[in-house]
Amino acid sequence: MIVGKVVGSVISTRKSSKLVGNKFMIIEACADMQKESCRLVAIDPIGAGIGEYVLVATGSAARIGSGMDLAPIDAAIVGIIDDPSEL
Amino acid sequence: MIVGKVVGSVISTRKSSKLVGNKFMIIEACADMQKESCRLVAIDPIGAGIGEYVLVATGSAARIGSGMDLAPIDAAIVGIIDDPSEL
Amino acid sequence: MIVGKVVGSVISTRKSSKLVGNKFMIIEACADMQKESCRLVAIDPIGAGIGEYVLVATGSAARIGSGMDLAPIDAAIVGIIDDPSEL
Amino acid sequence: MIVGKVVGSVISTRKSSKLVGNKFMIIEACADMQKESCRLVAIDPIGAGIGEYVLVATGSAARIGSGMDLAPIDAAIVGIIDDPSEL
Amino acid sequence: MIVGKVVGSVISTRKSSKLVGNKFMIIEACADMQKESCRLVAIDPIGAGIGEYVLVATGSAARIGSGMDLAPIDAAIVGIIDDPSEL
Repeated sequence: MIVGKVVGSVISTRKSSKLVGNKFMIIEACADMQKESCRLVAIDPIGAGIGEYVLVATGSAARIGSGMDLAPIDAAIVGIIDDPSEL
Repeated sequence: MIVGKVVGSVISTRKSSKLVGNKFMIIEACADMQKESCRLVAIDPIGAGIGEYVLVATGSAARIGSGMDLAPIDAAIVGIIDDPSEL
Repeated sequence: MIVGKVVGSVISTRKSSKLVGNKFMIIEACADMQKESCRLVAIDPIGAGIGEYVLVATGSAARIGSGMDLAPIDAAIVGIIDDPSEL
Repeated sequence: MIVGKVVGSVISTRKSSKLVGNKFMIIEACADMQKESCRLVAIDPIGAGIGEYVLVATGSAARIGSGMDLAPIDAAIVGIIDDPSEL
Repeated sequence: MIVGKVVGSVISTRKSSKLVGNKFMIIEACADMQKESCRLVAIDPIGAGIGEYVLVATGSAARIGSGMDLAPIDAAIVGIIDDPSEL
């Protein structure tokens, strides 16, 4: 998984029906966890707020781990970091 | 997921029979979401146009999320961004 | 998916029995689609020739999309580009 | 897989219910195995300690290989290196 | 897939029970196939020796292609290159 900060969100009205009801948060990966690129978009089943540091799973883990096996999701917030100063 | 701009398309007549009927759009990932490389090819079940900013899922999510589980697809447009100026 | 040029092939006699019968083509990804590295090896169920530009799927899509679900394949040529000058 | 050193851990109280009971260890990949970024977060079913060098599997192997098929896990410690000086 | 050279091995006594019986070889990817990082660890069901050039599959293909579907394996040697001078 990677740790990153929620820095914004995007809205997509015309989208796959399997994505309806999801929030799309923009995550900026922590500098030393910049998995290929510094930002990515993740769904947020946990309910993190802008500015919070979160744990993000990518790949099939995002879809299956969020109970949305058939949805086109490859990144999901799976936890909120208690104390980002420990990073 | 990543956000990118539709910058073109490619045509492949001699291809896997499981890909027939799909459009292959060239996506240029937003600068800060350049997942490994700045461009990739994605199928377009949503119907985005050239110049539009789109949400792209990669990996098994692309195949399964587009309802084409058995097709050789590793990237798919899954939504069109309402307001790219928010990015 | 990525687009790349077929630049050669490799031969492996001592290999997984599940790979017997496959050709292993060396693909050089187009400069702006250099997914992590500029070259990779893909199987070629389509029958592309050296010098042709091809569409390549990676990950589980390569295995499943080529009907070789149980084979150790993570990249496959899935189409030949009609007009590479459009890239 | 990659080899890395356990350099810390993160705590996430508000998280996916499927992650409860897991430790989240920060792994710094060995310099020449820096898979996309030098750090990542992995679960630790093996019980490695801070400072130990570990073998880490990523992708679906992490979830399935740890017997947590339905959990949002994309990286897991799967072994502790006997003699890191051999690396 | 990628092509790389077997440059060493690592031993892990305390490991996932699903990995018992496997050799863990260190592979240095060929310069132009450096998938994200130049080295990785792969299991070796084929029996390659140190110094040999091998074909490596990564991701779910490694696990499933090696007949170890439930093991935490994300990279596997799947063939030995007949003539590395062709690379």
